[in-house]
Amino acid sequence: MYERYWRKRGEKASITIPGWQSMSYFSEGEKICWFMESELAEEVVRLHNLVGNAVTEGRHIVVGTGSSQLFLAALYAFSSPSPSHHQQPQPISVISALPYYSSYPSMTDYQKSGLYKWGGDAETYDGEKDGPFIELVTSPNNPDGYTRESVVKNNTHGFFIHDLAYYWPHYTPISYPSDHDLSLFTLSKSTGHAATRIGWALVKDPVVAKKMTKFIELNTIGVSKDSQLRAAKILKAVSDSSEEEAFFKYSYEVMAQRWKQLREAVQGNALFTLPNFSPGFCTFFNRHTHPQPAFLWLKCEGEIEDCASFLRQHKILSRSGERFGVSPKYVRISMLDTDENFMDFIERLSSIHL
Amino acid sequence: MYERYWRKRGEKASITIPGWQSMSYFSEGEKICWFMESELAEEVVRLHNLVGNAVTEGRHIVVGTGSSQLFLAALYAFSSPSPSHHQQPQPISVISALPYYSSYPSMTDYQKSGLYKWGGDAETYDGEKDGPFIELVTSPNNPDGYTRESVVKNNTHGFFIHDLAYYWPHYTPISYPSDHDLSLFTLSKSTGHAATRIGWALVKDPVVAKKMTKFIELNTIGVSKDSQLRAAKILKAVSDSSEEEAFFKYSYEVMAQRWKQLREAVQGNALFTLPNFSPGFCTFFNRHTHPQPAFLWLKCEGEIEDCASFLRQHKILSRSGERFGVSPKYVRISMLDTDENFMDFIERLSSIHL
Repeated sequence: MYERYWRKRGEKASITIPGWQSMSYFSEGEKICWFMESELAEEVVRLHNLVGNAVTEGRHIVVGTGSSQLFLAALYAFSSPSPSHHQQPQPISVISALPYYSSYPSMTDYQKSGLYKWGGDAETYDGEKDGPFIELVTSPNNPDGYTRESVVKNNTHGFFIHDLAYYWPHYTPISYPSDHDLSLFTLSKSTGHAATRIGWALVKDPVVAKKMTKFIELNTIGVSKDSQLRAAKILKAVSDSSEEEAFFKYSYEVMAQRWKQLREAVQGNALFTLPNFSPGFCTFFNRHTHPQPAFLWLKCEGEIEDCASFLRQHKILSRSGERFGVSPKYVRISMLDTDENFMDFIERLSSIHL
Repeated sequence: MYERYWRKRGEKASITIPGWQSMSYFSEGEKICWFMESELAEEVVRLHNLVGNAVTEGRHIVVGTGSSQLFLAALYAFSSPSPSHHQQPQPISVISALPYYSSYPSMTDYQKSGLYKWGGDAETYDGEKDGPFIELVTSPNNPDGYTRESVVKNNTHGFFIHDLAYYWPHYTPISYPSDHDLSLFTLSKSTGHAATRIGWALVKDPVVAKKMTKFIELNTIGVSKDSQLRAAKILKAVSDSSEEEAFFKYSYEVMAQRWKQLREAVQGNALFTLPNFSPGFCTFFNRHTHPQPAFLWLKCEGEIEDCASFLRQHKILSRSGERFGVSPKYVRISMLDTDENFMDFIERLSSIHL
């Protein structure tokens, strides 16, 4: 979807890697994350400071093979026993408020780890009664796009992973720099370079950053340097872009246009309900902006119980609300597809009537 | 160590990736491994056929973020229950003959998986008495460089992972094309590009290949395309190289030179024993060659009980035999360091006398 932008930027975001460069596992510097390229760390800090979406002061950066790997690394860091402590007797519960990202349960449970296990809805969890937990706070939320905070009752003995993949100005107003113990970001959702598989975590506690680094060492012995160097180049191109070719200006306009087309397509159609967002002041754009999420969280009204099946009859692919822990009357649809596919979707959606 | 070779090859192994290319998660084609780039798969097959070290006919290729990730993916594939079966009641034992690669135990156990657990030495394992198992067969073996086969007694109900990272003509004679159910290879050890984090598995059973792909999907949602494209370019440069600039000829000579220097350095020194390899016919070079492993497996003789500590006093870094499941009289030392570090090592080793 952002491909057209990157074509316009031409060589400024291109990278050449000679055959004899970047061969060794190790990177320079005295960082906790021993396989992280300094160039990437610098560009991450620079972009966050420019956008104002995260405090980087006093944070350790850990790079991962996408934010998925960092999510697993964070579960490991919060649940693995310290050498000086006795072993964790019970796997810690991993929870998130409904509707939650559909991959969280399977990512948490596929290894059948004795360290952590999926615990479901965070709203009904009580930290005092139900024991230690790791709460996943995704904000803006995937699938529904709403801004979120922790919801667990009695949360003093919990750990928190803030998944901020969509906390960028093209998707939501940047109201303040996020300032959490552990936040995750990814190139995939910020600039569109999903295939590069680069994510990063901002981590307060050096012990947690060390354990995450250890996880990645045991999991994949580091993170592709080619991808790290490419990610650094791309983030640099975003930060370097002058006002008229600014990435976030372009991507904001594309998202705004798509949401406008979407709202027009279902306007007055009693079959569908879209989420209703309030505008907020965006410190990056220095004006009020509307949330325009990367996903559409659509509700089928009336007698349609299985919204995904209903849409499939009209050749629209979606993921059922059941996968996100809620009713099949809801579906999630990507707003980041190619122009052609998005126009097909709008056309098909507009043609559906009772 | 192979950097000088790649400098000589210049642009033939360099890659340029424009900012707008390789953005999507998906790759083309109808392969089981949906995130694998066709170019890489083609070059993997081409190189194996050229070198003659592996049968590729009737194999599914699965690409991984280094062979570490593929090792974990294979454990998952062999131990995760099929949808139609009841759940595995007990974690399956993961075993390997002594001395085994020092990271196998921690890589197997760090997640405390309920699917598999480290089971130690394969020599003392009895498949009938001790139950189902996954045997890791590393050949040539890390740390000692010897050629290996399965050693478990009553092995009809086992699974096998053949780690063939070092089965290349610069390290060992290629006596026949390997022909196993599941073999692992890696760019790191074949061409020296460790930081690119690319490995591949050759897998007979499509169900196993599918489960490995699923593991990588849940672990890192695929493998960096930048790295895959670079790996394809590098493997192509190896296959394309004419006789006088052939990669394996160059790397064989470098290894031969190092092993010669090493043997001279300890000759007549009763303190140390090196492994003793027999030459074998190499179908790739079409002559007899000597094994010249990527690691030196050194034994301290006489009263030296802790060889690693002893060497440390002489400023030589090594990994103790204890880490590989055997006596601390043994150590492993890398033979793949930079020229400068290797020469320092040889000098320090030569100067040690009783």
